[in-house]
Amino acid sequence: MAIAVDAMGGDNPLTVQIEAALQAIAEFGTDVVLVGSEAQIKEKLKRQSYDQNKLRIVNSTEIVEMNESPATALRQKKNSSIRVAVDLLSTGEADAVVSAGNTGAAMAAAKFVLKSVEGIERPAIATLMPSIHRDHPFVLLDIGANTDCKPLYLFQFALMGDAYARTYLHLDNPRVALLNNGEEEGKGYLQLKETFDLLKQSTLNFAGNVEGKAMFKDRVDVVVCDGFIGNIALKVAEGTFDFVRSVLREEVENTLLAKMGYLAMKGPFRALRKRADYSEVGGAPLLGVNGVVIICHGSSKVHTIRNAIKHAQECAEHKLNNKIALEVSENLEVIKRAKSLSEEA
Amino acid sequence: MAIAVDAMGGDNPLTVQIEAALQAIAEFGTDVVLVGSEAQIKEKLKRQSYDQNKLRIVNSTEIVEMNESPATALRQKKNSSIRVAVDLLSTGEADAVVSAGNTGAAMAAAKFVLKSVEGIERPAIATLMPSIHRDHPFVLLDIGANTDCKPLYLFQFALMGDAYARTYLHLDNPRVALLNNGEEEGKGYLQLKETFDLLKQSTLNFAGNVEGKAMFKDRVDVVVCDGFIGNIALKVAEGTFDFVRSVLREEVENTLLAKMGYLAMKGPFRALRKRADYSEVGGAPLLGVNGVVIICHGSSKVHTIRNAIKHAQECAEHKLNNKIALEVSENLEVIKRAKSLSEEA
Repeated sequence: MAIAVDAMGGDNPLTVQIEAALQAIAEFGTDVVLVGSEAQIKEKLKRQSYDQNKLRIVNSTEIVEMNESPATALRQKKNSSIRVAVDLLSTGEADAVVSAGNTGAAMAAAKFVLKSVEGIERPAIATLMPSIHRDHPFVLLDIGANTDCKPLYLFQFALMGDAYARTYLHLDNPRVALLNNGEEEGKGYLQLKETFDLLKQSTLNFAGNVEGKAMFKDRVDVVVCDGFIGNIALKVAEGTFDFVRSVLREEVENTLLAKMGYLAMKGPFRALRKRADYSEVGGAPLLGVNGVVIICHGSSKVHTIRNAIKHAQECAEHKLNNKIALEVSENLEVIKRAKSLSEEA
Repeated sequence: MAIAVDAMGGDNPLTVQIEAALQAIAEFGTDVVLVGSEAQIKEKLKRQSYDQNKLRIVNSTEIVEMNESPATALRQKKNSSIRVAVDLLSTGEADAVVSAGNTGAAMAAAKFVLKSVEGIERPAIATLMPSIHRDHPFVLLDIGANTDCKPLYLFQFALMGDAYARTYLHLDNPRVALLNNGEEEGKGYLQLKETFDLLKQSTLNFAGNVEGKAMFKDRVDVVVCDGFIGNIALKVAEGTFDFVRSVLREEVENTLLAKMGYLAMKGPFRALRKRADYSEVGGAPLLGVNGVVIICHGSSKVHTIRNAIKHAQECAEHKLNNKIALEVSENLEVIKRAKSLSEEA
């Protein structure tokens, strides 16, 4: 079991990835393949001590910039670090890929090289979101891979989210819900109503619609939406956290008592930050391609990449994609019905 | 200038509304028309002292329940408190309506009796949202009146949001933006791309796309989206606040120091709550009908209804609807183009 790490991606290429790889090797015993400029990686590794049997370097000669067009990168940079990492996954030399590089380029390479799991039309990016129960995050997907989604796609997101919750959160029977503007059946866009019907017929533990407020209250384990809505939900949550932080910082300046209170609450604030930001803590999986691909923010720090390596390892070890394939096979009849809906539309 | 208050709506009918009306009369000098069971209202007013010239009671004999179908209520309860209040607005006996009752029923009555402002296809509900700048909230609309929106509707929401920001926030040239999953032009659903084009051609100060995170950073004054997305954005923000509150409450229990810090920070936390929840502080306007209608949560407390009365009074005094009509007239060419888009679709 080896995890390929795109060493050239993100805002702090090489430094962050190499340090994270060494930590993962030391702490989790992971085998890591660093993909990037071999010379530069070797230079950086010079003064480090680590288990050499657990670290392999694979050279790549090109870099996809953060703002580069994914389509162009895919076509023109066949020796980029992300592409070479994904190639290693397809040839079996690696079991998963971690990248903090250009998200679009990572998705494009993964979809093109690895192809989708049979029965899955559109891979989706999932993220863990916090609930008020300390140990019960929930899975939100899609958070950005697909803007316009037919019921067929949303249904498949539900299957993939369920498989991911079983694999990574170790849940026996995840409660799967549709993000909607009301709990009652019949709410929302036509596509959501149709997806609701499909989910009712599925093997999933379908919990109906959930609202944007209630989903934080530990009522559901998987929340399904299209990538546009998922992006809005994720960004609004982030914006709200930033707002809270900014206002409290400003307001505590008003009195000495409040300032002291703020200091005394350092612990709870730190805990809040930690409980709030799951994606920061371990990356987001691209679900539905043939292989485990974990995507991290470009701004990821060492501990994020290190955790993402562990995240990737767990998903690969517990055979996430087999679970997705199984869920597809158990719901073939419903998928067939969803396809006939798509053709009518 | 008189504000009609639906005295029978909401979770605490009569009590909350009557107290709020008396406060508005005393504090703002507002003329209030209480609409509801005359006998019950008179009974409640018995031991109160107030300026009798400023309070009128109009009897109504029916009540729309909170979970009743708006369509049924509109058809069958022509003497409900909300319907009678809206009727007073249409006959000129009141200048605005405030209701904490069934939102759907209030909208249905307003649309049916008052009709839309000429040139506006779909009325929308707007709310103020907080930004990190203390005195600069922004307007978010639609937050729930319309799920499926053509570019034409979204464009009209932008005009209405702009008029509302000019009227109620006293802004000279509000920055109007589209809520989207990226800032670059060309992002999002097809309808959003088309709306982007319409906005570019309009008289508005169009600031382009804004993401769910950035909108809290005082970069824009009006954020336009369909009612589904608006509902998700609003509810996710509320859910995130609840999450923060819940986690901090739990985490401060861990140490005595943190508990004391929490107490010392009462002031900042109170300020945060106040800065966070604008709709709690004054209701949300239904924009685009011929008349000012302010909608409050069913759970609204006295100060919310009191503030909503003031909110209604200001919108009526500053002739919000004339401003909306003016913006429509200034953008007739763009509206025509938007209509031809709709017909093609």
